[in-house]
Amino acid sequence: MTHSSEAGSDGASTRITVSVDAMGGDAGPAEVVAGCLASIRRNPELAIILHGDEAVVGPLVGPHRELQGRVRVAHAEGVVTMDEKPSHVVRGNGKTTSMWSCIESVRSGDAAAAVSCGNTGALMLMSMLRLRKLPGVDRPAIACMWPKRGTHDFNIMLDVGADVRAEPDNLVQYALLGAAYYRNAFQVTRPRVGLLNVGTEDHKGRPEIREAHELLGTMAEIGRYDYVGFVEGGDIPSADVDVIVTDGFTGNVALKTAEGTARLIRDLLREELTASWLSKLAALPSLGAFRRLQKRIDPRRVNGGVFLGLNGTVVKSHGASDATGISAAIKLAFRLAQSRFQDRMSDRLAQVADAVQQDRAARHEAAQGASTKGEA
Amino acid sequence: MTHSSEAGSDGASTRITVSVDAMGGDAGPAEVVAGCLASIRRNPELAIILHGDEAVVGPLVGPHRELQGRVRVAHAEGVVTMDEKPSHVVRGNGKTTSMWSCIESVRSGDAAAAVSCGNTGALMLMSMLRLRKLPGVDRPAIACMWPKRGTHDFNIMLDVGADVRAEPDNLVQYALLGAAYYRNAFQVTRPRVGLLNVGTEDHKGRPEIREAHELLGTMAEIGRYDYVGFVEGGDIPSADVDVIVTDGFTGNVALKTAEGTARLIRDLLREELTASWLSKLAALPSLGAFRRLQKRIDPRRVNGGVFLGLNGTVVKSHGASDATGISAAIKLAFRLAQSRFQDRMSDRLAQVADAVQQDRAARHEAAQGASTKGEA
Repeated sequence: MTHSSEAGSDGASTRITVSVDAMGGDAGPAEVVAGCLASIRRNPELAIILHGDEAVVGPLVGPHRELQGRVRVAHAEGVVTMDEKPSHVVRGNGKTTSMWSCIESVRSGDAAAAVSCGNTGALMLMSMLRLRKLPGVDRPAIACMWPKRGTHDFNIMLDVGADVRAEPDNLVQYALLGAAYYRNAFQVTRPRVGLLNVGTEDHKGRPEIREAHELLGTMAEIGRYDYVGFVEGGDIPSADVDVIVTDGFTGNVALKTAEGTARLIRDLLREELTASWLSKLAALPSLGAFRRLQKRIDPRRVNGGVFLGLNGTVVKSHGASDATGISAAIKLAFRLAQSRFQDRMSDRLAQVADAVQQDRAARHEAAQGASTKGEA
Repeated sequence: MTHSSEAGSDGASTRITVSVDAMGGDAGPAEVVAGCLASIRRNPELAIILHGDEAVVGPLVGPHRELQGRVRVAHAEGVVTMDEKPSHVVRGNGKTTSMWSCIESVRSGDAAAAVSCGNTGALMLMSMLRLRKLPGVDRPAIACMWPKRGTHDFNIMLDVGADVRAEPDNLVQYALLGAAYYRNAFQVTRPRVGLLNVGTEDHKGRPEIREAHELLGTMAEIGRYDYVGFVEGGDIPSADVDVIVTDGFTGNVALKTAEGTARLIRDLLREELTASWLSKLAALPSLGAFRRLQKRIDPRRVNGGVFLGLNGTVVKSHGASDATGISAAIKLAFRLAQSRFQDRMSDRLAQVADAVQQDRAARHEAAQGASTKGEA
């Protein structure tokens, strides 16, 4: 990971550059530029490379003098649409797209991290193609944040959609990636890892989950995490766990179910509070409390799925992100680049991958020994 | 399904008897008896057989004169504990338990439906052993209710935990079972069925989900449902779908995640509204609105996972159910027994199972033909 510096502007001697895909989100490039503007105003150490059609993005950036010398537009004609199949994109006009260009900036070292609110599958595929997986990682994962009960902190959950399947080995890798991310993002020495299941008893769940359960216990020391065992859907915001590990299918459904439930409750609350002029009047004094609640459960505040397991940091912003959401994703990318967690993570990963292999070989040998004995 | 009648009491000439397991829930038999009392008071057509240790349950029922002639205690010494492995229960003291006895009453025709808040796995295994699966059903499923956006109605989702795996055939069966349940519980002629996935595009998801997607479209006419295609976690409370089909692992995680999110938001709201004496004061005028919201999202109101695909109706009440929750589960069991949906469901199921087989054979033949052609 490279910290790009742009000397001589505004007295900020060392800036961190974040690469931002201006196209592809549902809200359009104007919203992305508004998000960049908000971030640039708030953070003097931030610089941005903005990827997209010059003819579209240029006129959006131009009028803002604050962006001069801080935001550079990198021209890329193509746009990845939301519904396109990732393999089609890559085989087709992939290399001409703003998304490709956005990742390319990280690969070349011009930027320290990338942000896009485009097609998740295409972003992951391009990231894998261009940035490559870290040694010891079979499958990268997407990690999301989750409000933690009783605090203003967060839990993280992964995978929430990089891959629809996960073998026990992959789940262990997710634990390592997640623990490394949590350690660096939240300054917690030994994150507590839990494995998502349909119950907390040992006999519950699918066979591959029970195998991962054993492996996760064995690997805790070397992976520098505490393994708290199985957790259920209701425990994702628990204060007793930091990192929740699951396959990308289950994780994606859980994430979207929680967002959907939060939206439903917000709308029901609004409905009840505005059902009549009397209830509207009654709600007025509590508006401040509602706003604070809204802020605490606002999905935009925890916006940004982080791709873990690659040679480079990529943050996937929500497809429907507005300026607030995009600004939150840029902030996250900046913070991760600043913590250099990428560098620290890679060494340990390879080491743990070896340990898992050895553990497996030892088990296999033990099983062989037992069966030979049985035959004798 | 039998409608038990008890002549000569209180002028209710035809009562429907529900079999209730008094033991095994987290809250204990006193809470179950309180739930029965609430149901009996509200519904003059209801009779109950209460299964449990006479020495424990008898003294709880005795003092309530209203229960005389309406609630009969059936003695069963054994109790299934929450953490016990289902197969252990059945191999061990299974037949002496209140849960077994509770299901036995449905099998014998003494009761029209069963309610238990005990160990889900054990309840399902005993139900399968004693009531047997309906013809055409490989795997029974558990269906739960979900608030429907913009209305006071409900969606249902299944499976939420009967089995951790589901093949495409099973998912189609879940659609049929769910549609039949929805039709009868909510008087909707052609329920709309959606398949839970990580995206709505055709290429998304696991291979078995995509296969089920095709089958569900083909079987819609004969199954008398409208297939709306893939839905995501955020769509579970959608007004555009009635029945959400998924495997029991994903469904269980989604259900518990939603419950956990609702609890989290409730607690955060409470925290914000009681943060200071000023915010407490400000919240007072809106207490009515909060209570109405609380009621609409109260998991106890939608309490009761229904076991579908068996020769008999079994309702699984939440393990931590209090009197309100148990009363809701009894009400659901009563309503299902009254609608005789069980009888109407079974005919059609066998018919559809045949159609799925034929469809599969036809595809297989077509594929064979194509490959032979290719070789020629």
